[in-house]
Amino acid sequence: MTQIAARLLELGIELPPIVAPVAAYVPAMVSGSLVYTAGQLPMVAGVLPAVGKVGEGHGLVPAADAKAYARQCALNGLAAIKGAIGSLDRITQIVKVTGFVASDPSFTGQPAVINGASEVLAEIFGDRGQHARSAVGVAVLPLDAPVEIEFIVAFA
Amino acid sequence: MTQIAARLLELGIELPPIVAPVAAYVPAMVSGSLVYTAGQLPMVAGVLPAVGKVGEGHGLVPAADAKAYARQCALNGLAAIKGAIGSLDRITQIVKVTGFVASDPSFTGQPAVINGASEVLAEIFGDRGQHARSAVGVAVLPLDAPVEIEFIVAFA
Amino acid sequence: MTQIAARLLELGIELPPIVAPVAAYVPAMVSGSLVYTAGQLPMVAGVLPAVGKVGEGHGLVPAADAKAYARQCALNGLAAIKGAIGSLDRITQIVKVTGFVASDPSFTGQPAVINGASEVLAEIFGDRGQHARSAVGVAVLPLDAPVEIEFIVAFA
Repeated sequence: MTQIAARLLELGIELPPIVAPVAAYVPAMVSGSLVYTAGQLPMVAGVLPAVGKVGEGHGLVPAADAKAYARQCALNGLAAIKGAIGSLDRITQIVKVTGFVASDPSFTGQPAVINGASEVLAEIFGDRGQHARSAVGVAVLPLDAPVEIEFIVAFA
Repeated sequence: MTQIAARLLELGIELPPIVAPVAAYVPAMVSGSLVYTAGQLPMVAGVLPAVGKVGEGHGLVPAADAKAYARQCALNGLAAIKGAIGSLDRITQIVKVTGFVASDPSFTGQPAVINGASEVLAEIFGDRGQHARSAVGVAVLPLDAPVEIEFIVAFA
Repeated sequence: MTQIAARLLELGIELPPIVAPVAAYVPAMVSGSLVYTAGQLPMVAGVLPAVGKVGEGHGLVPAADAKAYARQCALNGLAAIKGAIGSLDRITQIVKVTGFVASDPSFTGQPAVINGASEVLAEIFGDRGQHARSAVGVAVLPLDAPVEIEFIVAFA
């Protein structure tokens, strides 16, 4: 068993299957020593666990739920990366995370939502999981997903 | 005639002139073996073919129209890349496409819109046209453009 | 005194301290010959100088003010980059700037806002300050910031 596979087992994390792109692109593309993922939606077994905008109030997705979806985006991103380079043990650094949160215009807690991704990357990869990050609140996301996250990772 | 120029002719595609930046930046920047383009608006001869938000309903830009504008963004992006590296035959891979769709908050079909770019890249470049991609719905774009797309490509 | 330090003095620009990330990430990450910054908010001494959406009208942040905040984002980005690579003299090219403007849906002047960042980069770095750039209008930003900008720079 590889090092990251052992760490995933220890954390009780099962890597999901690669999420099929919802359009004419690939889940991840290698260029030089970098892997660029497609924007990852929080799909679970091909279905979004929730739809809508994140915020406080009736009909909105609670921030705590959105944080859990961000974690799922990260796991889906890792599945896409594994598909591209064969093993997560090849990752030398998570370099950049860009998180888009479908946001009610009054919701300003995007960083805490995207922490759901950042924290699971730190749990799995330790120092190699550190990354620069942007989080923004957008009007709406594909399929009405509450969160979409893309990743750039370095590998060897 | 170069290989890609022949393919463009075969497809009946005429590459537009480079769109002048609307502000203090350059159309494309080379770094190492990558070219980063500026965000491309669907300009045709210096004019946006439509303005507004994409969605269904009165006063909105129909998704099918927006898909055609996304195609134009891709052609404008290729013009910018050609200006930076001299020939599109040097492109070894379209690596990453990020598509921003100015969206009515109820519109969730961003992937189909950005397919307008992805599909023309596949037509022109075949396997080298495959790419990772993100599509998001934003509140509003510069000059009220319905679509803006940026590209990262590898070249040799 | 290094070359860029002298230029900053000449311009009367004092580089701010590195802005602490507002969540679980680092201010900048090096990969190969590139530095990726986190999304930079226009923090001044740990405080946002203004909050809200950019646009014309009561309760909105004027575009001219937002341009000044974009300049601050750039300075904060340079501080983050300096922290990662030790000296701004190592920068060989500002490669890519991505600017997110929290925008009233009727505001379409994002490029002029993000010029606040592009122009100060040109003042400091001359030709090395040229870059590809995207500017988009988003629904809302972390902490209700009016502007967030991220940078990719090449260094040697």
